[in-house]
Amino acid sequence: MRLLLLSNSKKSGFGYLEWAKPTLQSFLGGRVRRALFVPYAIVTRSHDDYVELVRRPFRELGLEVEGLHRAAEPQAAVAAAELIVVGGGNTWQLARSLHLLGLMDPIRRAVRGGTPYVGWSAGSNVACPTFQTTNDMPIVDPLGFDALGLVPFQINPHYLHGNPPGFQGETREERIREYLEANPRATVVGLREGTLLRVEGDALELVGDEPARLFRHGSEACEVQPGGDLRALLGS
Amino acid sequence: MRLLLLSNSKKSGFGYLEWAKPTLQSFLGGRVRRALFVPYAIVTRSHDDYVELVRRPFRELGLEVEGLHRAAEPQAAVAAAELIVVGGGNTWQLARSLHLLGLMDPIRRAVRGGTPYVGWSAGSNVACPTFQTTNDMPIVDPLGFDALGLVPFQINPHYLHGNPPGFQGETREERIREYLEANPRATVVGLREGTLLRVEGDALELVGDEPARLFRHGSEACEVQPGGDLRALLGS
Repeated sequence: MRLLLLSNSKKSGFGYLEWAKPTLQSFLGGRVRRALFVPYAIVTRSHDDYVELVRRPFRELGLEVEGLHRAAEPQAAVAAAELIVVGGGNTWQLARSLHLLGLMDPIRRAVRGGTPYVGWSAGSNVACPTFQTTNDMPIVDPLGFDALGLVPFQINPHYLHGNPPGFQGETREERIREYLEANPRATVVGLREGTLLRVEGDALELVGDEPARLFRHGSEACEVQPGGDLRALLGS
Repeated sequence: MRLLLLSNSKKSGFGYLEWAKPTLQSFLGGRVRRALFVPYAIVTRSHDDYVELVRRPFRELGLEVEGLHRAAEPQAAVAAAELIVVGGGNTWQLARSLHLLGLMDPIRRAVRGGTPYVGWSAGSNVACPTFQTTNDMPIVDPLGFDALGLVPFQINPHYLHGNPPGFQGETREERIREYLEANPRATVVGLREGTLLRVEGDALELVGDEPARLFRHGSEACEVQPGGDLRALLGS
C-alpha cells in the first residue's frame, strides 16, 4: 500500500497544500496523470468549488483532478482511479457520504490493491480503523464509526499540545487519554499541523518540521522525530 | 422547568464550581438538601472520585451529594430526587450511559415535572435536543444522538471565539456553521467559559461576565449580553 496522510492542508505563509508539495512530488513520481478527488467532507461550500480549490496545486504537480461526485458510477470510478485523494472538512459528513454511497469497501479494495491514497485532515481520519479520534463536530449521523482501516492505528490530525492560555476545557491529550481508556488496545498518533505520514509498503515515515506524539494506554506519551522509522506502528 | 446550564466547572483563580456559587445559591434558595449526582461523563477517574470532587462545593451550599451510580434502582432514584446534577467530562460516554441505563426518559420526566436540573459542560450538552454541538472526542458509540431536550436549542459549551495564533484548523464558529448547514432549523448558543444559562419556567437569563454568541442558519451570528432577556429562545 502507498499512503500519504497529511495532518492538514494549510500552513501559514504557504498556498493551499503547498507545504506538502515536495513530498507529493516524490510520492507521485511523475507516474500519475489523473487524481480522483473525494470532496464529501466539505459542508458550507459546493463539491464543485472544492474540486476547483484542489485543481490548482495538483495541476502544478502535472495532474488533472476529477471530482468523484460527478462520476456516473462512483464505485466504478474508484476501481479505475490512478490516485485517490480525500480532502478535509467535516469527518462526519465524509463518513456519512462514504457509507451512504457504499464507497468504503471499493476504496479499501482499490488502495489495498495498489492505488495510491492521499488524504488530509478528515481524509486522514477515515484512513484509520475508525474516525473516533477526530476533532470535528458530529453534525450528522455518520451511519457507523468504522472507516477504511488502511493503517492499524488512529490519527488525531491538527494535533495541538496543551491549551490556549486561560482555556479550561480538556486538552487534546486528555481527550486522547479518554479514547484509550475506552479503547485500550489502540495506538493514537497526534499529527501536528504541517506534518504527514508516508506509508510505502511496510515502511512508515514521519515527514515535516515537528515531531508526532504517540499515545498508548498505560504508557507515557512519547515524541517521535521526523525521519524516524515508525514501521512498528504498522504491526500495531 | 428550572435549569442551570453552565458552560464549565472551572475558572482561573477560583475553586471547582466556585465561580457559579452565587447563582447556585440563589437557584437552590435553601430549599434543597440533597443532590443526586450523575457522574457518568467521567472517563479516566472513578465515579466515586467524581462524587468526592463535587461533594465539597455542594456541601458549602448546604447540600449532601449522592452518586447515581450507587443507587440500587437508578430510575427510581431519579424519580425521587430533589435535585439532579449532571457533571461534565466526555459527552459521548455520558450519553451512552444514559441510553444503556434507560435514564433519558426518567430524567426528562422528572425535570419536566419540576425537579431542578444543574449541568455543566457535557451536562449542558445533554440538556439539548441532541448533543451534536459537543466539542468532545467520540470515544464510544453513544447509542443514539438524541438527548434530554429540556431546552429547544443547542449549546456549545466552552465556546471559544477564533483560533489560537497559527492554528489552521476550523474555528468553533466554522464548525457550528457546518452544524447549521446540516440542521438549518436549529439555534446554537455559544456559551463562553464562566457563563451559564438559567431557566425559570418561561424565563431564560444569561449569567456571567461574558456575552453568549447566537448562531442561526442564514443569519450573522450575534452577541447577547449577560442579563439580557433570552426567553424568545425557549420558543425556538
